[in-house]
Amino acid sequence: MLAAVAHARAQGREVISLCAGEPGQGAPSAVRAAAAQLMHAGIPLGYSETLGVRALREGIAGHYARWYGLDIDPQRICVTTGSSGAFVLAFLSAFDHGDRVALARPGYPAYKNILTALGAEVVELDCGADVRFQPTVELLAAAHAQAPLRGLVVASPANPTGTMISPDELGALVRWCDEHGVRVVSDEIYHGVTYTGTVGTCAWEFGRRALVVSSFSKYWGMTGWRLGWLLLPDDLAGPVDALAGNLALCAPVPAQHAAVAAFTEAADTECQVAVEGFAAARRLVLEALPALGWTDVAPADGAFYVYAGIANLLGPYADSVKWCQALLDQEDVAITPGIDFDGVYGSTHVRLSLAPGPDAVAEAIRRILRFQSRIVSA
Amino acid sequence: MLAAVAHARAQGREVISLCAGEPGQGAPSAVRAAAAQLMHAGIPLGYSETLGVRALREGIAGHYARWYGLDIDPQRICVTTGSSGAFVLAFLSAFDHGDRVALARPGYPAYKNILTALGAEVVELDCGADVRFQPTVELLAAAHAQAPLRGLVVASPANPTGTMISPDELGALVRWCDEHGVRVVSDEIYHGVTYTGTVGTCAWEFGRRALVVSSFSKYWGMTGWRLGWLLLPDDLAGPVDALAGNLALCAPVPAQHAAVAAFTEAADTECQVAVEGFAAARRLVLEALPALGWTDVAPADGAFYVYAGIANLLGPYADSVKWCQALLDQEDVAITPGIDFDGVYGSTHVRLSLAPGPDAVAEAIRRILRFQSRIVSA
Repeated sequence: MLAAVAHARAQGREVISLCAGEPGQGAPSAVRAAAAQLMHAGIPLGYSETLGVRALREGIAGHYARWYGLDIDPQRICVTTGSSGAFVLAFLSAFDHGDRVALARPGYPAYKNILTALGAEVVELDCGADVRFQPTVELLAAAHAQAPLRGLVVASPANPTGTMISPDELGALVRWCDEHGVRVVSDEIYHGVTYTGTVGTCAWEFGRRALVVSSFSKYWGMTGWRLGWLLLPDDLAGPVDALAGNLALCAPVPAQHAAVAAFTEAADTECQVAVEGFAAARRLVLEALPALGWTDVAPADGAFYVYAGIANLLGPYADSVKWCQALLDQEDVAITPGIDFDGVYGSTHVRLSLAPGPDAVAEAIRRILRFQSRIVSA
Repeated sequence: MLAAVAHARAQGREVISLCAGEPGQGAPSAVRAAAAQLMHAGIPLGYSETLGVRALREGIAGHYARWYGLDIDPQRICVTTGSSGAFVLAFLSAFDHGDRVALARPGYPAYKNILTALGAEVVELDCGADVRFQPTVELLAAAHAQAPLRGLVVASPANPTGTMISPDELGALVRWCDEHGVRVVSDEIYHGVTYTGTVGTCAWEFGRRALVVSSFSKYWGMTGWRLGWLLLPDDLAGPVDALAGNLALCAPVPAQHAAVAAFTEAADTECQVAVEGFAAARRLVLEALPALGWTDVAPADGAFYVYAGIANLLGPYADSVKWCQALLDQEDVAITPGIDFDGVYGSTHVRLSLAPGPDAVAEAIRRILRFQSRIVSA
């Protein structure tokens, strides 16, 4: 879809793209100002400590104290090159070649692709609307009974569905995994981008065996800066430090220094404004759902996506890939076919991103309704 | 050693550290100015294309035209998160689990550690002073005869020895590998940091089957920025693009935009001044060699290291680790024990970094001579 959007735009067409998994606001101004100052200061920006600049790790520790009431030693925080860098380190340190690692389907495709590239065996848990698209202890136990699992990747809020796991459910998953020698990798990159009155639940609220992944990309809007972090269980702190020293050396250092300013009140206010924009776009979609006639709509408790079924709206189109292509061709609106997230049922699903904000989403809904009305009347 | 240096400095001691593999000058001023301007402009810095910002890839293509007379399609250039990111992509795309990959011993330890973490079998070629510490077709053929090799990692200038492979020798290695189905990964990150009147020879001067790794860290002094690149053979361009899209998304975007200015004449002039500083430091060490009595000294054609044997100077110390520790304790000078680079002979070798420049190196030599004179007279 991204290539098709680029092609259409190159032809001069004004495409509304609701494909991207990135907010549009950019880094908080305090972060940009800090980065600019750093450049003018002219100090050489050499490698940082492998785990990251100390001041940033202290800032992240402070963030955990404020958001979750957790007291975290900065030596148990590894600053990474985006959450991508964190996943590579987490998977390599926790899993061996051939280990079975479970994750939800639908889900973020890179989990599966990174794990496969690193030689793990991916076990997809069939997580439908009945379980709010999230793993359950029952699904885990069934997969574990077939052959022992070594890992579970869990994401809350999730991509593409936006659904969140309740504290009780996350606690139950973490406890079950701890009891069965299954390492939890908890993707918490969408924390704070939420619409339920909570920032999200951290897996470390239930013990410190999990590898927790987070990022400056979503709440702080710093996608291109490639900055994230990993909370390290005691037994993996040494292995991750050694791996990071060889695989990455350190995360980008100008970004590390600048991101210290992400934890200021001014930056937080800007982030909240961005989340309010996503929330307004989300309300528009939820209000339009009866008219859209989409089914199996995920709750979208957080993140900036609405994931839904369009099986009864496909009309002449064989699947959601063809449907999305026709929508782009006819109405200059791009949304993502579900096949990217679910190799089994994704062909009848689509993901709409709220990140471009309420104006773009309102206009996109009008065009989608017009497109669908032609299908129904055809 | 780095931890010992940090500990000594925390005690208020003024340590001269000749351990670091990074130049001290920092990014060229044109790059820093471009980065600052980018921050003031306030444009959101979202993900770039997976292969990297087009203007930077065009800049890199222009660089290959100027330095090597090579015409390279920007679609065959993948901007990476430092050379570290390039090695992970290169190894994952070119090698399968269990593949035998050859490399020189002594060598940069991360090659071995990354390959091992990714499940490859590392085959160390015993490259002594007799072969200028570099692989030869004879060494390769012998290893291949034991069990087929799938890859060769070659570095010129090399770390820790600084030795360069002549164009004829590199051509012979590349041809032998092409004929035997062995993929060459050519580490060219020290190109331009050379003392022989050549910038270095690119593996693509002998065909385009090799994966070529380079970086803004050394010649351009941008270590902390984490920016490098990979030249992609036709058959690996698709796999690397797909892997990078999952493992990294893209290289740091502020750095990508800013680094376009690395290819200006002003930036190049600053880089040349830095290289002249390393060259002055190198001359000081070479002139001091008779007095130092170090043996098996690698030629140090490039990079910023001198690697040498101290077997006959160990005195009461069991190996170069203990010797270096004593040197730090007694004289506040830190150099790197060879064991980091060579698990077999490294215990009698040391690596001295020229990166801190002639003043630091001159003072370090005075202190090392004083330290050694106490050993000899003891």
